[in-house]
Amino acid sequence: MSADALADRLAADRARIDVRLEALFAARSAPSPRLEAAMRHGLLVGGKRLRPVLVYAAGRALGAAEDDLHAPAMALELVHAYSLVHDDLPAMDDDDLRRGQPTVHRAYDEATAILAGDALQALAFEVLARTAHPRLPALVAGLAGAAGRDGMVAGQALDLAAVGGHPDAAALAAMHGHKTGALIRAAVRLGGLVAVDEADPRLAALDAYADAIGLAFQIHDDILDVTGDTATLGKTSGADAARAKPTYPSLLGLEGARRRADALVETAVAALAPLGEAASPLADLARYMIERDH
Amino acid sequence: MSADALADRLAADRARIDVRLEALFAARSAPSPRLEAAMRHGLLVGGKRLRPVLVYAAGRALGAAEDDLHAPAMALELVHAYSLVHDDLPAMDDDDLRRGQPTVHRAYDEATAILAGDALQALAFEVLARTAHPRLPALVAGLAGAAGRDGMVAGQALDLAAVGGHPDAAALAAMHGHKTGALIRAAVRLGGLVAVDEADPRLAALDAYADAIGLAFQIHDDILDVTGDTATLGKTSGADAARAKPTYPSLLGLEGARRRADALVETAVAALAPLGEAASPLADLARYMIERDH
Repeated sequence: MSADALADRLAADRARIDVRLEALFAARSAPSPRLEAAMRHGLLVGGKRLRPVLVYAAGRALGAAEDDLHAPAMALELVHAYSLVHDDLPAMDDDDLRRGQPTVHRAYDEATAILAGDALQALAFEVLARTAHPRLPALVAGLAGAAGRDGMVAGQALDLAAVGGHPDAAALAAMHGHKTGALIRAAVRLGGLVAVDEADPRLAALDAYADAIGLAFQIHDDILDVTGDTATLGKTSGADAARAKPTYPSLLGLEGARRRADALVETAVAALAPLGEAASPLADLARYMIERDH
Repeated sequence: MSADALADRLAADRARIDVRLEALFAARSAPSPRLEAAMRHGLLVGGKRLRPVLVYAAGRALGAAEDDLHAPAMALELVHAYSLVHDDLPAMDDDDLRRGQPTVHRAYDEATAILAGDALQALAFEVLARTAHPRLPALVAGLAGAAGRDGMVAGQALDLAAVGGHPDAAALAAMHGHKTGALIRAAVRLGGLVAVDEADPRLAALDAYADAIGLAFQIHDDILDVTGDTATLGKTSGADAARAKPTYPSLLGLEGARRRADALVETAVAALAPLGEAASPLADLARYMIERDH
């Protein structure tokens, strides 16, 4: 599809999720308004909403009803947002800027940022549970597994341990496979699980797709850190190099990294073959992963 | 029942939960062994296992099968353990000692402690989801609601905001009702929900019981901070006063605080009347709340 049509569809999905995320904070009496404001800041200020977009696209590809996709889409974004709030903390990446705005601990304070992240994680599971979907056990276990010690949190721990070290491409892929890959895989898988049960072979096709785009996404992120500017990225460009973080461009060169990302997108698109034409929006998203400028 | 018989029963429940918590870390290949070790430290070093004990007692009082109670019991302890790891952080209470051992950020480092807490929270929901209990939506929503912005995390935010201030008894009760009360209430409620559905009136009796013991527990904790010694408590005694934290003894005097705790235990025991003799272990636990020395 054309770049404009894809942009329109992405914008529609983002609007769909944003209105629902915003509604989580409407018409309620918050016990701690400061905590609530910090959660809003971490969740609602900017963001590409890539994981919700993947939930919608994967779910639609397998015939899920759109109304059943909102809760998993929200839950994925809540977990992603909490992870960014914590990753930015002084004890972790110590970032001042995120999505073009002060990070939560800069806009509020460190304790409030820790708590806001904690509460965003709990809210993800609460939102998911309130759907009472017949496959809720698989949805909750899938999200929790991807978010925790076998997924995203482990990846962040590996990332911190790697700073200043010299991992090879395999170690770097393992780290990213946990840090960003696990949640991208969960987004695609939860979308699929809304439509079909765990034994459906199309879920394996979605897994293969998700693994490839997850890594392509990360490689492109590393490339943007070198080639992008702070204003477009909404976060400090060159931050990886400044911290001596191992990246794909530092490992493969800029051109080598680009070729690797291209090959992964081809792999992802090929994996979608068993899903037929219904998966073409997923293929468009795979290409978008390495064409975006932020 | 006699104090010895109660002690034996508590010890049996603790052994029951400890072996299962320990098993969460057995025979697995952890992506980040350091993260895993920090999680173990936060979860397995000491602890009264009060919340699991409450899950078991409440569940048994309504006739739940014991095998169905292990997962909610573990999930409650996982959430409690994560909250302690985060509460102890330098940006929060800045504690060096917990359960007689160095806190997680002292034994490891601050970033690892943040991540270990995050992963313990995710693991709570994963453990719960794997049961596939027919009332899983209520179990997950109940735990997430109690843990997050309407419960424990809000209480911690209110607690931090209150340091150096002069809240009255109502404000102090509201803070504790969130900070420790919400999770104690969830322990009792989830135990009950394993046995009966949400419309069962006995759950309301359990709620009233849990509200009263939750506050009695906190008042007794404040009293121990004044009267206990560091070795018995396993944490630094006098820490509240040193931080100018408002407490029940500072508000009501030591004797006033003791009378208040006694009255709450009477309220809790009275609330159990509709449950009959099956609830007598819950009544024993209520009394234990204000008799423990740590």
